[in-house]
Amino acid sequence: MPAQLIAIGQIRTPFLRLDQCPRNIQPDGPQCQLQLNPPYWDELRGLKPGQLILILYWLGAARPEVGHAKAQQVRWQRSESDSDPHGVFSLRTPIRPNPIGAAVVPIDRIDEGCITVIGLDCLDGTVLLDIKPAIYRETGSTA
Amino acid sequence: MPAQLIAIGQIRTPFLRLDQCPRNIQPDGPQCQLQLNPPYWDELRGLKPGQLILILYWLGAARPEVGHAKAQQVRWQRSESDSDPHGVFSLRTPIRPNPIGAAVVPIDRIDEGCITVIGLDCLDGTVLLDIKPAIYRETGSTA
Repeated sequence: MPAQLIAIGQIRTPFLRLDQCPRNIQPDGPQCQLQLNPPYWDELRGLKPGQLILILYWLGAARPEVGHAKAQQVRWQRSESDSDPHGVFSLRTPIRPNPIGAAVVPIDRIDEGCITVIGLDCLDGTVLLDIKPAIYRETGSTA
Repeated sequence: MPAQLIAIGQIRTPFLRLDQCPRNIQPDGPQCQLQLNPPYWDELRGLKPGQLILILYWLGAARPEVGHAKAQQVRWQRSESDSDPHGVFSLRTPIRPNPIGAAVVPIDRIDEGCITVIGLDCLDGTVLLDIKPAIYRETGSTA
């Protein structure tokens, strides 16, 4: 299987503990920064404020080494109060086989090596993996 | 940095060579299958036909070991004919620091351990990394 992932930077949010993180992104949430590592500063060229981007990040605090077992636990916890139990791929839980978080947000501001966006849901210091332009179409989209 | 990624299955498409792959997803493209490995079959529970899912996959054929150098090359090639050169994070090129592909598509059909979707753009046999429900909001979305 694939090579290891590379940190391209880190995400700054006001959330220092998992219990402070909202469950999903909040369009009226706080400002958050995508701080790129210096080798990648030039790679932001062409992005513009207002543009929608897909951000991928590593949900490290979800402890990937216990991913499958914990995901099952989450599933069964839900199923106790739910007649239609959900597998991990029908949930947005951070505890999953590959704990990669994904969010589509508009760019608020671009400074040198840093993009400001609104309302991410992850911990301060989260490892940033990728930024892509988000593409939408009527009957499908490339996020 | 993070643990290695895990293959949760593979993607079946009609594309056997990179030059056959469309540049993005095609809403009127061919049927493609997300074939989960048996340990994950139960984790599809709760997903329904018609539902939009975010698929993450490994763009292995993009040769991640040369990711940064190749991405620069792509950028400079573009910049020769483009007065506003683009960095890799403003492009959808598969040649990027972490070559993770992302697509949002509706579920066409669900069979045991297998989801059929329409019009993916990746090679046959591409490693599947994650499936999440796609969430959309007016001013931002969690893809």
